[in-house]
Amino acid sequence: MSDSIGVAVIGTGFMGKCHAMAWTAVKGVFGDVPRPRLEIVCDSDEPRVRAAAEAFGFAQATTDWQAAVRDPSVDVVSIAAPNEFHAAMTIAALAAGKHVWCEKPMAVSFDDVAAMRDAAERSGRKTCVGYNYVHNPAVQHAVRLIRSGVIGKVASFRVTMDEDFMADGSALWSLKNDAASGYGVIDDFGCHTVSLAHLLVGDIVSVSAVAAKPFATRPSAGGARSVETDDVVHAVVTFAEGAIGTVTVSRSAWGHKGRLDWEVHGPLGTIAFSQERMNELRLYVAEEEPATNGFRTIFTGPDHPPYGLFCPAPGHGLGFNDLKIIEAAHFLRVIGGRESPIYDFERASRVEAVVHAMARSAREGRTVSV
Amino acid sequence: MSDSIGVAVIGTGFMGKCHAMAWTAVKGVFGDVPRPRLEIVCDSDEPRVRAAAEAFGFAQATTDWQAAVRDPSVDVVSIAAPNEFHAAMTIAALAAGKHVWCEKPMAVSFDDVAAMRDAAERSGRKTCVGYNYVHNPAVQHAVRLIRSGVIGKVASFRVTMDEDFMADGSALWSLKNDAASGYGVIDDFGCHTVSLAHLLVGDIVSVSAVAAKPFATRPSAGGARSVETDDVVHAVVTFAEGAIGTVTVSRSAWGHKGRLDWEVHGPLGTIAFSQERMNELRLYVAEEEPATNGFRTIFTGPDHPPYGLFCPAPGHGLGFNDLKIIEAAHFLRVIGGRESPIYDFERASRVEAVVHAMARSAREGRTVSV
Amino acid sequence: MSDSIGVAVIGTGFMGKCHAMAWTAVKGVFGDVPRPRLEIVCDSDEPRVRAAAEAFGFAQATTDWQAAVRDPSVDVVSIAAPNEFHAAMTIAALAAGKHVWCEKPMAVSFDDVAAMRDAAERSGRKTCVGYNYVHNPAVQHAVRLIRSGVIGKVASFRVTMDEDFMADGSALWSLKNDAASGYGVIDDFGCHTVSLAHLLVGDIVSVSAVAAKPFATRPSAGGARSVETDDVVHAVVTFAEGAIGTVTVSRSAWGHKGRLDWEVHGPLGTIAFSQERMNELRLYVAEEEPATNGFRTIFTGPDHPPYGLFCPAPGHGLGFNDLKIIEAAHFLRVIGGRESPIYDFERASRVEAVVHAMARSAREGRTVSV
Amino acid sequence: MSDSIGVAVIGTGFMGKCHAMAWTAVKGVFGDVPRPRLEIVCDSDEPRVRAAAEAFGFAQATTDWQAAVRDPSVDVVSIAAPNEFHAAMTIAALAAGKHVWCEKPMAVSFDDVAAMRDAAERSGRKTCVGYNYVHNPAVQHAVRLIRSGVIGKVASFRVTMDEDFMADGSALWSLKNDAASGYGVIDDFGCHTVSLAHLLVGDIVSVSAVAAKPFATRPSAGGARSVETDDVVHAVVTFAEGAIGTVTVSRSAWGHKGRLDWEVHGPLGTIAFSQERMNELRLYVAEEEPATNGFRTIFTGPDHPPYGLFCPAPGHGLGFNDLKIIEAAHFLRVIGGRESPIYDFERASRVEAVVHAMARSAREGRTVSV
Repeated sequence: MSDSIGVAVIGTGFMGKCHAMAWTAVKGVFGDVPRPRLEIVCDSDEPRVRAAAEAFGFAQATTDWQAAVRDPSVDVVSIAAPNEFHAAMTIAALAAGKHVWCEKPMAVSFDDVAAMRDAAERSGRKTCVGYNYVHNPAVQHAVRLIRSGVIGKVASFRVTMDEDFMADGSALWSLKNDAASGYGVIDDFGCHTVSLAHLLVGDIVSVSAVAAKPFATRPSAGGARSVETDDVVHAVVTFAEGAIGTVTVSRSAWGHKGRLDWEVHGPLGTIAFSQERMNELRLYVAEEEPATNGFRTIFTGPDHPPYGLFCPAPGHGLGFNDLKIIEAAHFLRVIGGRESPIYDFERASRVEAVVHAMARSAREGRTVSV
Repeated sequence: MSDSIGVAVIGTGFMGKCHAMAWTAVKGVFGDVPRPRLEIVCDSDEPRVRAAAEAFGFAQATTDWQAAVRDPSVDVVSIAAPNEFHAAMTIAALAAGKHVWCEKPMAVSFDDVAAMRDAAERSGRKTCVGYNYVHNPAVQHAVRLIRSGVIGKVASFRVTMDEDFMADGSALWSLKNDAASGYGVIDDFGCHTVSLAHLLVGDIVSVSAVAAKPFATRPSAGGARSVETDDVVHAVVTFAEGAIGTVTVSRSAWGHKGRLDWEVHGPLGTIAFSQERMNELRLYVAEEEPATNGFRTIFTGPDHPPYGLFCPAPGHGLGFNDLKIIEAAHFLRVIGGRESPIYDFERASRVEAVVHAMARSAREGRTVSV
Repeated sequence: MSDSIGVAVIGTGFMGKCHAMAWTAVKGVFGDVPRPRLEIVCDSDEPRVRAAAEAFGFAQATTDWQAAVRDPSVDVVSIAAPNEFHAAMTIAALAAGKHVWCEKPMAVSFDDVAAMRDAAERSGRKTCVGYNYVHNPAVQHAVRLIRSGVIGKVASFRVTMDEDFMADGSALWSLKNDAASGYGVIDDFGCHTVSLAHLLVGDIVSVSAVAAKPFATRPSAGGARSVETDDVVHAVVTFAEGAIGTVTVSRSAWGHKGRLDWEVHGPLGTIAFSQERMNELRLYVAEEEPATNGFRTIFTGPDHPPYGLFCPAPGHGLGFNDLKIIEAAHFLRVIGGRESPIYDFERASRVEAVVHAMARSAREGRTVSV
Repeated sequence: MSDSIGVAVIGTGFMGKCHAMAWTAVKGVFGDVPRPRLEIVCDSDEPRVRAAAEAFGFAQATTDWQAAVRDPSVDVVSIAAPNEFHAAMTIAALAAGKHVWCEKPMAVSFDDVAAMRDAAERSGRKTCVGYNYVHNPAVQHAVRLIRSGVIGKVASFRVTMDEDFMADGSALWSLKNDAASGYGVIDDFGCHTVSLAHLLVGDIVSVSAVAAKPFATRPSAGGARSVETDDVVHAVVTFAEGAIGTVTVSRSAWGHKGRLDWEVHGPLGTIAFSQERMNELRLYVAEEEPATNGFRTIFTGPDHPPYGLFCPAPGHGLGFNDLKIIEAAHFLRVIGGRESPIYDFERASRVEAVVHAMARSAREGRTVSV
């Protein structure tokens, strides 16, 4: 059992199931990682947690997260509970000596983010924040292309993330409209867009944002209730290295289901990506014969690791859940000391700092330094 | 253990790993299917089969397929060995009372296909041929749309499947160029395209095909060696219900990595699909206001079962391997009597008959009835 | 006036207006061609021909085509009348010593095509058939790329032309459903697809076609009336140089408005084009680093003559009518002896022969040599 | 001659030729507009102006713009000279009683813009600024859809305009890098993006912009010379009616040749457009059955006036120059009192005010009210 690792998963919703699927699949796909032992699954909803335990074959199901994060059978904890619990769960797990894989955003307040970052540093344990889009082989290939100078030093960046799950104004008021849940789209989508920005271009140092609530109120049992969180945010940003950029996010953009588009411009070329077509990377390299030059649509394949471990044939396509399997393998290697973290709590806290700066900029109507 | 099922996987290449991943994931994703027990993995290459057993946690690794298909711990056999072994393995597994999930094409000769079909019928066991593209929620949604009359009775169909893994003329002669391996692209891709045609439009009754070998010879250790299989086939077909169609396939089409595009035209609309963008279905419905009518690009999501079991958010995207997980769940339900087979050996043999008719048409230069 | 040329246009419908617009614009755009003098416009509908004369500034309007084609002020005649008049008008114009620019298809019967071809040869006058898609700078660039060996010797070709103007089964019976008008989509769209095939790959030598009438009858004043022409044709073809191909055309393909897609595969690469995005050419060249290779979407621009005469900025886009302006300039240069014809009557008659062979193949259910 | 109108065109470059082509074509295409008489073409380069006069058939060629704008044969003046001359030429032409069609941006300084606006108001003559993208039938259809409430009140807007003509850092310093030419991309592209914003959403009231010069210097005869204008600008904006938006423009975005993409989100749907595919409009309407809903790609056609005057068949496609023909027809109707102006100097001056506010915001690093 020296080559296995005990896993607890807290939360059985969208991301909880996604983590459980990743822990189930990662050893078969990657081969050279420890085998996860599914020790404990935890959720506040008892029938649901029993069903998840049965489906995935977890050894235990519990509604007591504090017991779960301390259980001696557990080496690593997946935290996929609602955002407001991330800080307490994370800090307890780290204190119990566990490695922590936490979903995004890290926390509702930046104080909590900072506390999580500090707890991780003190603990000496490994951490990972689930910005899963950064694990796409297409994105990682873009990072390699940029670092190898293929497009030169990035001068300009754009990123857009749009969905439409809050676009229906007749939908009932929900917790996501409550200020207690966070800022709304700023943290929900903002941290995905900023994690990509930091990875591709470097740290953002200033932001100027505007935010909108397309629906001031939403229907509720007790009549119309005020919407306190924003559904749309547009921001211009500047990077430490001199580039400028835009970040636009909306969860009220009808028709967009999983859009996450970004583009980087350098003096030698351009790279563009669209998550809804997540197996394609578009590259334009300036130094070609103009008459036959154009954006190349590159389908990912075995030339873009670790795609080949999933499928030896290019262009056959990974899916959203496969990104989480890659993230699981990455974190297992980070834990084993074989790979450097991409987004541990320290680096992720800088992403989350930008998100909080965006919220402040939008509120105060001025440019804010991070 | 009444709710579990013993699995053997024969073959550890592209499709063998794909089956193993599907067996590993299916219970967690679907919940309401029996839990596969990974009993035996088999491959002629001993180090490789040991590695696969270790990665996926199979109880046994063996190089003896005959023992594997008869082992009492095994209820269902995945056959992902080279095509020329499908018939012998399948017939032995059925004779031993196992359910059989066989990769495509069923066999190299139609005599073998017929023998497999007859063995399945005699055995009373369940069978499934791995035409995995038919399990895409987008494709299944198209089938529902067609059956519900949204586009009317199909009049015309086109399907194209292109890859480029044989497009390099300087690549060495290989077994895929040997007539003993089959017809080449006709069976390799033909059965994918025809399985979609039969599913969407109904049975094909006549074909007129032309075939090409872009490279007459390929380099080989002993000098240039004749290429005996075709890389490109174009065919026109007619359907039992009166529609006409084209089937075009190539494994020497530079730039195409996983193309599988089809389109159906009916008197009330058109549906189109492209596997390289496998999470999108395009639909045109005639009865709209012309000024605002156009093809709709529908992203699959929870409204297209079983997508929602993988991810509650639409447009986030399934991958190629997810189709095999769906196929595994489908076959488990077929075995459990809860679902009708889509492509058991009987229905698949009619697909393979069309493929063999195409080969004959191309060889004889005339229209051939199926 | 030595640098001007007298023009007559016969027909004021879709193509007649298109010719008139081209004659009006060509001198300003190209500069180095003779200035067309708009001498005569002719149509059987008197109010309509007067309106056209007024709008375009023709010196005369007439309903007498025989006078028009013989008028001494006229050097070149645009023939854009219904197909059944092409032969008589053309032969008369050539006999009167005029150059002839005739719309496609050349004629309803191949006997007429042959007579037109022979009349042209006897006359020593210049001729041009209006296969206008071949004049797209993107298409001409593809021809140059193929001729320069960029993709090697073409092995496989596909072309599809789809519109939906006959897709509505409740539309009334019209002359296009009458056998007297020709074969239907075979000649209407077939000659566009075959003219591209011949230009890009070389002459077609055999065809095997199937044809369909999605609506056996159409409503008419006197009750349902039989549809005599085909709306859908699918064909496989072989080329003199050894390539194989498909030609699929439909005028009952809901949702397609101006689709004309083609793709050529060679041993070194692929070129693809889609008329609905007529300013883009897609090129895949095999000899690139695989990890960064993909289809390039090339926007046409000044590097693709004569685009730059329309606009100095690439990617700004030509339109359908601009292709006719290019065709007009081409024909003026052919007349002036400065350019070789692309599709004079001799070369076009070989295109039309393929179209007639398709009709015969579909009717007789067998492969037909051209 | 009562139904004709005398035209002068000042400038024979990109836009000068574009105006001349439009004046040549407009009567034939539209029919019911006065016939333009090409009276005078003017350019400072004598051989060039003579060539233009010959090609287009202008009655006079001159290098004296002051004479041109006062010539009694002239009713309307096209001003397509460099931006720094717009104000003087415009004001002189208006003073001489001419109608003025001026290319964008109106002028280098906002003082000049204001002077032009005031001169127009005093003159009583008609004016038009050449924001030609607003005349696309697809764009005009989007305006109608928005005004009819199809997507509800717009909450969010994005627009991007990218080209790459300044992307090559080794290109020599030119006048476009000189502050005397204006701000750079802010005015060059900014006014296109803002003219679309105002048309689709309403007036912008505040902007927060960042700007970048990817190349601080450019090579020049006398050694490296400072670049004084910006190549990239990103801005967030707010609209009078409450919507928020982004405007991102770059003339150093490799690979983009004529990109001008915009998208509007409302509570009932989304509309999106991309100029590189200028004949397509994408529309998502929320109130559809979710399983078959998606963005519709609408090809423009006769249902989107005035497309049908160019071509009776939808999806065949207009080109960039056709937009100028539509603009010419529009201005002729404005002059004739048959249509309201879209962008006369008064309305255009509000567009240009936003552009100048962007420049100030970027320079001062703060949000600026317009």
